[in-house]
Amino acid sequence: MFKHELGDGVELRILETRHSGEFLKFVDENRAFLGRWLRWGDEIKTPEEAGAFLRRGIERYVEDGLPWVGIWLEGEMVGGVLFFPVEPRTLATEVGYWLGERAVGRGLVTRAVSAMLDYAFGALGLHRVALQAEVGNEKSIAVARRLGFTEEGIRRAAGVNKGRYVDMAAFSLLAEEWALIRERFVRHAPPDDSSNPTAR
Amino acid sequence: MFKHELGDGVELRILETRHSGEFLKFVDENRAFLGRWLRWGDEIKTPEEAGAFLRRGIERYVEDGLPWVGIWLEGEMVGGVLFFPVEPRTLATEVGYWLGERAVGRGLVTRAVSAMLDYAFGALGLHRVALQAEVGNEKSIAVARRLGFTEEGIRRAAGVNKGRYVDMAAFSLLAEEWALIRERFVRHAPPDDSSNPTAR
Amino acid sequence: MFKHELGDGVELRILETRHSGEFLKFVDENRAFLGRWLRWGDEIKTPEEAGAFLRRGIERYVEDGLPWVGIWLEGEMVGGVLFFPVEPRTLATEVGYWLGERAVGRGLVTRAVSAMLDYAFGALGLHRVALQAEVGNEKSIAVARRLGFTEEGIRRAAGVNKGRYVDMAAFSLLAEEWALIRERFVRHAPPDDSSNPTAR
Amino acid sequence: MFKHELGDGVELRILETRHSGEFLKFVDENRAFLGRWLRWGDEIKTPEEAGAFLRRGIERYVEDGLPWVGIWLEGEMVGGVLFFPVEPRTLATEVGYWLGERAVGRGLVTRAVSAMLDYAFGALGLHRVALQAEVGNEKSIAVARRLGFTEEGIRRAAGVNKGRYVDMAAFSLLAEEWALIRERFVRHAPPDDSSNPTAR
Amino acid sequence: MFKHELGDGVELRILETRHSGEFLKFVDENRAFLGRWLRWGDEIKTPEEAGAFLRRGIERYVEDGLPWVGIWLEGEMVGGVLFFPVEPRTLATEVGYWLGERAVGRGLVTRAVSAMLDYAFGALGLHRVALQAEVGNEKSIAVARRLGFTEEGIRRAAGVNKGRYVDMAAFSLLAEEWALIRERFVRHAPPDDSSNPTAR
Amino acid sequence: MFKHELGDGVELRILETRHSGEFLKFVDENRAFLGRWLRWGDEIKTPEEAGAFLRRGIERYVEDGLPWVGIWLEGEMVGGVLFFPVEPRTLATEVGYWLGERAVGRGLVTRAVSAMLDYAFGALGLHRVALQAEVGNEKSIAVARRLGFTEEGIRRAAGVNKGRYVDMAAFSLLAEEWALIRERFVRHAPPDDSSNPTAR
Repeated sequence: MFKHELGDGVELRILETRHSGEFLKFVDENRAFLGRWLRWGDEIKTPEEAGAFLRRGIERYVEDGLPWVGIWLEGEMVGGVLFFPVEPRTLATEVGYWLGERAVGRGLVTRAVSAMLDYAFGALGLHRVALQAEVGNEKSIAVARRLGFTEEGIRRAAGVNKGRYVDMAAFSLLAEEWALIRERFVRHAPPDDSSNPTAR
Repeated sequence: MFKHELGDGVELRILETRHSGEFLKFVDENRAFLGRWLRWGDEIKTPEEAGAFLRRGIERYVEDGLPWVGIWLEGEMVGGVLFFPVEPRTLATEVGYWLGERAVGRGLVTRAVSAMLDYAFGALGLHRVALQAEVGNEKSIAVARRLGFTEEGIRRAAGVNKGRYVDMAAFSLLAEEWALIRERFVRHAPPDDSSNPTAR
Repeated sequence: MFKHELGDGVELRILETRHSGEFLKFVDENRAFLGRWLRWGDEIKTPEEAGAFLRRGIERYVEDGLPWVGIWLEGEMVGGVLFFPVEPRTLATEVGYWLGERAVGRGLVTRAVSAMLDYAFGALGLHRVALQAEVGNEKSIAVARRLGFTEEGIRRAAGVNKGRYVDMAAFSLLAEEWALIRERFVRHAPPDDSSNPTAR
Repeated sequence: MFKHELGDGVELRILETRHSGEFLKFVDENRAFLGRWLRWGDEIKTPEEAGAFLRRGIERYVEDGLPWVGIWLEGEMVGGVLFFPVEPRTLATEVGYWLGERAVGRGLVTRAVSAMLDYAFGALGLHRVALQAEVGNEKSIAVARRLGFTEEGIRRAAGVNKGRYVDMAAFSLLAEEWALIRERFVRHAPPDDSSNPTAR
Repeated sequence: MFKHELGDGVELRILETRHSGEFLKFVDENRAFLGRWLRWGDEIKTPEEAGAFLRRGIERYVEDGLPWVGIWLEGEMVGGVLFFPVEPRTLATEVGYWLGERAVGRGLVTRAVSAMLDYAFGALGLHRVALQAEVGNEKSIAVARRLGFTEEGIRRAAGVNKGRYVDMAAFSLLAEEWALIRERFVRHAPPDDSSNPTAR
Repeated sequence: MFKHELGDGVELRILETRHSGEFLKFVDENRAFLGRWLRWGDEIKTPEEAGAFLRRGIERYVEDGLPWVGIWLEGEMVGGVLFFPVEPRTLATEVGYWLGERAVGRGLVTRAVSAMLDYAFGALGLHRVALQAEVGNEKSIAVARRLGFTEEGIRRAAGVNKGRYVDMAAFSLLAEEWALIRERFVRHAPPDDSSNPTAR
């Protein structure tokens, strides 16, 4: 019911546990496609596992005010954006995202993540958003670059993929950087509602 | 960020703990007006109390998928709709609502509650929604009648108001009843997304 | 060991988890008889399920001071009385009861419930006791009437029986009403011990 | 409401948190008298502390089936019997007791403890009940002897009284011993209801 | 990594969950030998059970500062010393120990326990350490005597061994006693580091 | 009692809550010196705060097997080494360290951290240890370099110091790298005891 419309039939909706069936269907259809880079492509195989994953997201919404969202294209779930826990001392978090095979090539992830970034930096007052992509995952790295993230280095063996250690490219975007470029992504975006957390 | 637009500058937004300040301001301005019938008009006097109230709502969203929502009119919080815990065996819940003095007379509560009822009976598959109003609270009872609720009787001494026991008028609305009348309230409403819980 | 004697070989005893075996035997012998109206006639089939049910009762005793009790007739468990959680703001609770087939026709439930009501309104200072019976369950409704409960209406689809929604007749009894009629039920009843809770 | 009658106006009642006021009054009146030997004579000075003490007792009832009980003489609380947690592997527990100044000399503690022992060894199937008394507390030691307990030795510095370490005389009574002597204490006592735990 | 060296290739190490494999191997090799007197000789048969046992020990270290330790002889685990929870009011605890068959006859238990006693009475400021041995377990009783413990009596049926109740010989050692004899056991032992708890 | 000797009067000891007094004294004496770079130089001002800090460390020992340790020089606490939670999927952790003013210039941190690294990579089988130092904290960065850590980049605004965001230099060391250089740091170090976790 609650949604954030991105136009052209694209909507973000908060992921809830009742989406388990729809989410599992999405994972099943994209398992090979997602699994190349995404760990949980292999891990979510039952409605219970899908529900447990989604529940972690909705619990984050309660704790941090920052939900995990699905991307719906013309009524079909095609991808999503998630966040790691907010570190309250530094007002920092980390973003992740995924997209199904059929929806690639339309800039959906860029639009979805930029909308969420605008909310995180704006209404929620966060100061830093990190992003990690496995070295070699060019599509994911391209998203980071397109959104103005700065590469900070390679975190060696900081991930595991198919049982092997992999290096992760680390990126970050700061609130003041986003303020300068947000208009490229979120045109006529009036400030939603705001709160003013400050670093503790 | 996430909202359900009702048109004419009216929006429903999920109530989050970051709305504490805005919510406390609303309660402060409407304390006398709300307090005639609403218990928590007297109970919420600090940001902590406002935050605790809102946190109870967002926790319900995690548990039942049914959030507490605020009504925003032209960017200002003017009222809200809450739900009691869903009883999983009977797929039943109870709804409550409130509206600030300046926003009365526009049918906002009817529109807000009907939107939430449509979600509860539709996407969430609930079967029964109860509603209680203190005997004598004619405005609240009028909302129940307008929305098609059936009066089920008077629950004697089932409430406490200003330290005195008060009788509560009990109403209910069932899924099959809502299906017949929903078009009056939610015109071109395509089915959102659905799940199919059944009574346990 | 601890009991409340009702005379004629009838005793109330607090239900404890050690009664699991005796309780399961009672349920087994009365499954068809109880099951017509009582949900848990179908749900309690193992000692563990019997123990879990009884544990919920004894935990209520700790929280509210109002135990679930069994009715013993000449040393045999033949029925019981339970309470739902006490609502501390309104000092209200709801009572339930059951009786095995062989013990019907002696007024045991009326005597057992009236003893518990006298305790709830007296020593515990409660203000309202509700009671619900499925529409059509004439025996249960007769008990409510005999004990002076007032019918408050029909709660539609407020119960589930054998997988179907059923309507529930709602009754209540208030402390001041009980004070006027208690002598009919609890003759030479000296005040036990008392505490004086007041509505919060 | 629930009681175990010992005759001559003496009753045992399960101690509940609602007895806080009555219990605090008892402690206040007997503080000097009890405090010579009883640690909590000094520790319970407010209704909250009295309630916390009683709550520990009622929680034991839920866990072990063995409640803490008060001794009522002609409607007045004059003493009590408590138990430490039951050790499930050895089916052992430890008993304690107290009596107010005005009620001494009537054998009330002996009668109360023997009734509880009969319940613990009988209905609950326990195998060993320990009892400790500070060396020098002749009245308490006399109770242990009178009830057939066997002294097992002196546990050195096993207690603290008024900030000083004190030695404790240790006693025990076993189920088979009780079976031989119970008739002296609990005359025409038909077996209550029974469960059959065995040592794990 | 962290150890307390006793000389002659003997070391005490804090038992951690990662020692599960080594500990299970020790128990397997000494099951018959240990099982005569030690309950858990029969109970620990899988890595999970070994890990759960060791975890209880390491949790005690966090709570009381008194770890469970293994005895290593030339790099092989050959025995251990454990403690029951510290009773904060009396600053009392109880010690237990075990030794594998191949390591008997070297005084290892005496050396290990005396080192731990010196730590418990010294750095931790405890006041009383109890010790129980099944009647007939002469080797264990000899250790108690050699370490200066005083026998306090026989606790009847206070243990269960192979499903039968057994009597336990009870011993204790007090801080002031240890102060007089510690030099016999822990020669040039400079005070480690100290804290000064006092009886509460 | 349990220690890891580094020679020359230097020892590592597991930090326990009983060290609160000694630790607070250390922090008090080095507040200005440590506080330039260390957040908790400002945060620990009471024995309770010192105890809470140390308790977090000992809890890590239980969870991960990797304790927080103090560095003792001739019987005086002069510094320490801590670890962040181990990430079980990647077998990664992060190390931190501190040293009091009077003990600088002796290579104590290098020796302490290398001993802990050897334990983390060896006995515990970890695969990656990260290390972060505020940009400008040359002494800390020198330790990382001396121990063979590789710089991975600058994490912008990833820390807060005196209320201002600061950039953090990120380093890491992998198990295979440590294997090649460990002999420089831990000479005649026989393998302690080992477990073989593998990445999950």
